[in-house]
Amino acid sequence: MNKFLVFQSDFGLVDGAVSAMYGVAYEVDPTLNIQNLTHEITQYNIFEASYRLFQTISYWPAGTVFVSVVDPGVGSHRKSVVAKMKNGQYIVTPDNGTLTHVAKSVGIEEMREISEKTNRLKDSEQSYTFHGRDVYAYTGARLASGVIDFEGVGPLLNVEDVVKLPTFDSIFTDNSVTGQVDILDVRFGSLWTSVSREDFAKLNIHYGQKVKVEIFHEHLMVFSSELPYVTSFSEVSIGAPLVYMNSVYCMGIAINQGSFSKAYSVGVGNSWTVKFTKVEG
Amino acid sequence: MNKFLVFQSDFGLVDGAVSAMYGVAYEVDPTLNIQNLTHEITQYNIFEASYRLFQTISYWPAGTVFVSVVDPGVGSHRKSVVAKMKNGQYIVTPDNGTLTHVAKSVGIEEMREISEKTNRLKDSEQSYTFHGRDVYAYTGARLASGVIDFEGVGPLLNVEDVVKLPTFDSIFTDNSVTGQVDILDVRFGSLWTSVSREDFAKLNIHYGQKVKVEIFHEHLMVFSSELPYVTSFSEVSIGAPLVYMNSVYCMGIAINQGSFSKAYSVGVGNSWTVKFTKVEG
Amino acid sequence: MNKFLVFQSDFGLVDGAVSAMYGVAYEVDPTLNIQNLTHEITQYNIFEASYRLFQTISYWPAGTVFVSVVDPGVGSHRKSVVAKMKNGQYIVTPDNGTLTHVAKSVGIEEMREISEKTNRLKDSEQSYTFHGRDVYAYTGARLASGVIDFEGVGPLLNVEDVVKLPTFDSIFTDNSVTGQVDILDVRFGSLWTSVSREDFAKLNIHYGQKVKVEIFHEHLMVFSSELPYVTSFSEVSIGAPLVYMNSVYCMGIAINQGSFSKAYSVGVGNSWTVKFTKVEG
Repeated sequence: MNKFLVFQSDFGLVDGAVSAMYGVAYEVDPTLNIQNLTHEITQYNIFEASYRLFQTISYWPAGTVFVSVVDPGVGSHRKSVVAKMKNGQYIVTPDNGTLTHVAKSVGIEEMREISEKTNRLKDSEQSYTFHGRDVYAYTGARLASGVIDFEGVGPLLNVEDVVKLPTFDSIFTDNSVTGQVDILDVRFGSLWTSVSREDFAKLNIHYGQKVKVEIFHEHLMVFSSELPYVTSFSEVSIGAPLVYMNSVYCMGIAINQGSFSKAYSVGVGNSWTVKFTKVEG
Repeated sequence: MNKFLVFQSDFGLVDGAVSAMYGVAYEVDPTLNIQNLTHEITQYNIFEASYRLFQTISYWPAGTVFVSVVDPGVGSHRKSVVAKMKNGQYIVTPDNGTLTHVAKSVGIEEMREISEKTNRLKDSEQSYTFHGRDVYAYTGARLASGVIDFEGVGPLLNVEDVVKLPTFDSIFTDNSVTGQVDILDVRFGSLWTSVSREDFAKLNIHYGQKVKVEIFHEHLMVFSSELPYVTSFSEVSIGAPLVYMNSVYCMGIAINQGSFSKAYSVGVGNSWTVKFTKVEG
Repeated sequence: MNKFLVFQSDFGLVDGAVSAMYGVAYEVDPTLNIQNLTHEITQYNIFEASYRLFQTISYWPAGTVFVSVVDPGVGSHRKSVVAKMKNGQYIVTPDNGTLTHVAKSVGIEEMREISEKTNRLKDSEQSYTFHGRDVYAYTGARLASGVIDFEGVGPLLNVEDVVKLPTFDSIFTDNSVTGQVDILDVRFGSLWTSVSREDFAKLNIHYGQKVKVEIFHEHLMVFSSELPYVTSFSEVSIGAPLVYMNSVYCMGIAINQGSFSKAYSVGVGNSWTVKFTKVEG
């Protein structure tokens, strides 16, 4: 362990919830280095939580312990788990789909269920709605500080049983690839699609060429245009749309200094599909 | 002192105010561990500041120094104080009601007025509007780092003279208890009432039973329904309302994966009262 | 170097961008002390980024390394630079005007262009849109930790060539001074003007006196009134307007516990001018 403890949640930073989690963790070990991934996950949005872990964890040191609490089923029979990732990091989370993306991108080596008998904040037994503070922050801090080792988390689970959300497998034709809008680059309104650079490479489209982009909501087409495929936004005029490879090496669609998602009212999730087609000639 | 310095304010994180406070504190001692409670207190809302301290400080280590700056009276004759709490923590704040809840929940052992002759950032004498940076962050850092001890803050005040905001004493009848809506669990829209679990226990209502909930704005009833009293949200359907005990052990009213406050346009403060009544039979 | 690394950007904290920057920096040196200035700079607003640096850096210890990433031209020919300031601090940024205010208030001693051959995150060569992570956070961390010294950044640039945004020089008449609305005290809606206390002092107006305030949008007058010049907001009634000296020692216009910018729909930038005139008699 390297004493890094990184929190993610859908709690926001407006009230005292996250600060209570910090306090609990520092009570376990005041020498921890606690940081945030984000606490602005859309409420109850497990897919988003899963994606943000995928987007960031590989940039952190091995041994880092992540605690992700997007937990609409708090108090139900969903399991509380710690996943030991193949890169030497740990993720403390409800087993509700939060591990979907990192299970694929990094891989889970082992997974254990949190035994609340030992791994629960003292005297919190009558608190049923804030496992983020009472179980997850507490267990994450104990693990990150070395108070417990991975075995101390609780009994082993079968890694294959990890709960996974549906993801979208790219659909190929001779000259097109179709994916979904996974998520937004929120502040800038760019669409981040599920089409990876490897998928896109099969179309043999080079920087500077045009690519036909069609976006559908359910079966309704909401956008259809040929856009330039560029390395960076500044290659097109301010206000012009473009296709690019984003910072997680998937295909993005954006407007230079504008918001593509607002301009065309495009949302995220598996009802929003994007088709890239090679332009002939 | 343990070198923990925790800031709260209504400054937000959009401009440079909080970062200037951090800088001032690190100039005093670069080895401080500075963290945030929240900086999103509603502007000028002293009650909220008081509540957020109550919600969180007991989870932090003894010796932690909190600095809370919600200060509509900056530059007026309100006192700048440091309260030494009975749990060994310190709170640096304008004496304007911010200590209301923790004076009751934790208790103030001693209180001193900040002597600005020694405890004011050098060369800041002509700055009149940012005591958060020039006096509170500076004094908090000096105290947390051991540059001054508690005596070094300034002259002793009478603990009984601490400014307190009005709070709502629970009203009991044979089969009901009435409180106010103290605050929201902001991100999720749940109502946090002033009715403690001890108050509620007098109704002898058990988990799984129904309880009649009436909500009033001034004397106008805005909600009246029998709701299930449950341990956690997932015991009711998604979208269903419920009564629960929240993470500070008071009674809450919520909608599972919805926002009760938005659904019924319920606000906070002493014009919003909540009456829980035992359902007979 | 003192191991302080302070980040600013227009990325927001909603997605994983900032956390990825933190991870990259901690991979360089896990003992860094990384903090935020703000990540809520209005998208692409270089003037605002420049102002927030001016507002805060002098409160941080000498040796602190600031990384500011408001970079609408990412991937274009704008240079990536590190400025060594005359106060012993460093600023890592695209050379796009971000250094405008601090070049004047603190002064740039030397400036170097970042050589991406050595100062770029390993294996990030194919990422073109996130220099914040791949170049700026990485280089800032290497500099703050001592992995490289200032010479290790890259070749020297001519300090006079630093890109500067237009700023507004105060215009004086016998009894008035005119400036622009530089920025807002965002949470409270106060106007922060470009008129310094030195400029204002020439009018020989004392605390407690009235001053005539006229605000123009382009050539249209949007506000004209005599307001009291006070040390702090609480000297006027709640809801009353006032003139004051703000925490960066420039003249501000506010409403006590209200929002001046909302009340009169006043914006920021060089199309918004403010004229202060001495009231005779």
